[in-house]
Amino acid sequence: MKIKLTLSYDGTDFCGWQKQPKKRTVQQVLEESITALTGEKTVVVGSGRTDAGVHAAGQTASFETNATVPPEKFGKALNTFLPPDVRVLSSEQAQSGFNARKCAKVKTYVYSAYFSETEQPLKERYAYRLYGKLDVRQMQKAADILVGEHDFKAFSSTGGGAKTSVRTVYSIDINQEGDNLYFIIKGNGFLYNMVRIIVGTLLNVGRGKTELSTVKKMLETGERALGGETVPAKGLCLVKAEY
Amino acid sequence: MKIKLTLSYDGTDFCGWQKQPKKRTVQQVLEESITALTGEKTVVVGSGRTDAGVHAAGQTASFETNATVPPEKFGKALNTFLPPDVRVLSSEQAQSGFNARKCAKVKTYVYSAYFSETEQPLKERYAYRLYGKLDVRQMQKAADILVGEHDFKAFSSTGGGAKTSVRTVYSIDINQEGDNLYFIIKGNGFLYNMVRIIVGTLLNVGRGKTELSTVKKMLETGERALGGETVPAKGLCLVKAEY
Repeated sequence: MKIKLTLSYDGTDFCGWQKQPKKRTVQQVLEESITALTGEKTVVVGSGRTDAGVHAAGQTASFETNATVPPEKFGKALNTFLPPDVRVLSSEQAQSGFNARKCAKVKTYVYSAYFSETEQPLKERYAYRLYGKLDVRQMQKAADILVGEHDFKAFSSTGGGAKTSVRTVYSIDINQEGDNLYFIIKGNGFLYNMVRIIVGTLLNVGRGKTELSTVKKMLETGERALGGETVPAKGLCLVKAEY
Repeated sequence: MKIKLTLSYDGTDFCGWQKQPKKRTVQQVLEESITALTGEKTVVVGSGRTDAGVHAAGQTASFETNATVPPEKFGKALNTFLPPDVRVLSSEQAQSGFNARKCAKVKTYVYSAYFSETEQPLKERYAYRLYGKLDVRQMQKAADILVGEHDFKAFSSTGGGAKTSVRTVYSIDINQEGDNLYFIIKGNGFLYNMVRIIVGTLLNVGRGKTELSTVKKMLETGERALGGETVPAKGLCLVKAEY
């Protein structure tokens, strides 16, 4: 039986999603909890392999099991074995061919930032601090350039191991709410560090450091050096995967 | 010279505001940072002595110093000595008689809760999880009973050491935003655990466990046993003190 899980985690104390020797990862604690519950060894597939420090409000994961636990009760049962920084929000049976990564059609990430002259201890865990003025309208214009099917090579770090760097971004919305700034990014898939480099580049546009023409040039030439910094992982959250 | 500080802290890893032997408290790390900056020993007074685990978005503190640091630069200088879970947001010179506790006219606390069948790792640090249905309109009616000058003995834990249990609550607003529920409470002062017992009692009203007449009776009789539980500290945040 194939099980589909929706889960949330605080990424602060995880070395990301993907299993690695001697590191605490979400995939590892999830697989351990399944083994503890069912006695089976299994491999859990996530919709996206979030990096170290990245959070998830609604990650989707899938795995195969022969256990007789009712599918809807799997989540609650796993939660009794999981550490408090990971929780399964719901579980259900999926079709036998379901694969949380391969079948994902749209993934939504939100990057959270806030304006403040000083670090705010109650915001620092889940958001990136900004200071100075930003031209948010100009940032939205730059974001609109990125929407569509493009080669996002200039917006990725080496080491991701993807076969192609062509991806489709469905939308990027930049919303300011008081002192908070949110980047809501939807796409069919994302390269290694892609969301964080997009945000870093848009911030440079907002600061007047990067022209809209440079953003176009990044898509044309694939030159990473034209872009902004890879903003910190703590501001990033995988909100949902759609199938 | 008297200095007035506005500060924020994440209360998770503090045993509250007030200095205690061998415990990590906000007052202690603040006094240590002042000593590190100025070489002086001083006593810092806070507008309210938040309990262990309670957060502050805008605590006010005052202290006396002979240091020649310009008042507006005191905050930034102290931040270089403070741990990351405490930050001074601003600093200024105050009148010589200013005392952050005695002079406070209105203090605003917010208690944050959220509805979810499962713990949500991204909310658990700063909010209390609720499940089941609540009659929020009935809770607001109960809250309105508490507004005004009353003897809040029934809404306090023993051990606070206050001379009188008469306080004035200026307003209690219960706001639901999606799955989040916020209790915004303003008053001239609060007894030990008073906000948390008010919230616990209002929750019992919302669950239909406690009648409005019982809330009135609590004010009349001072019987703590008629009230709800002292809800967890992590949901509570001191938002501001006004002078």
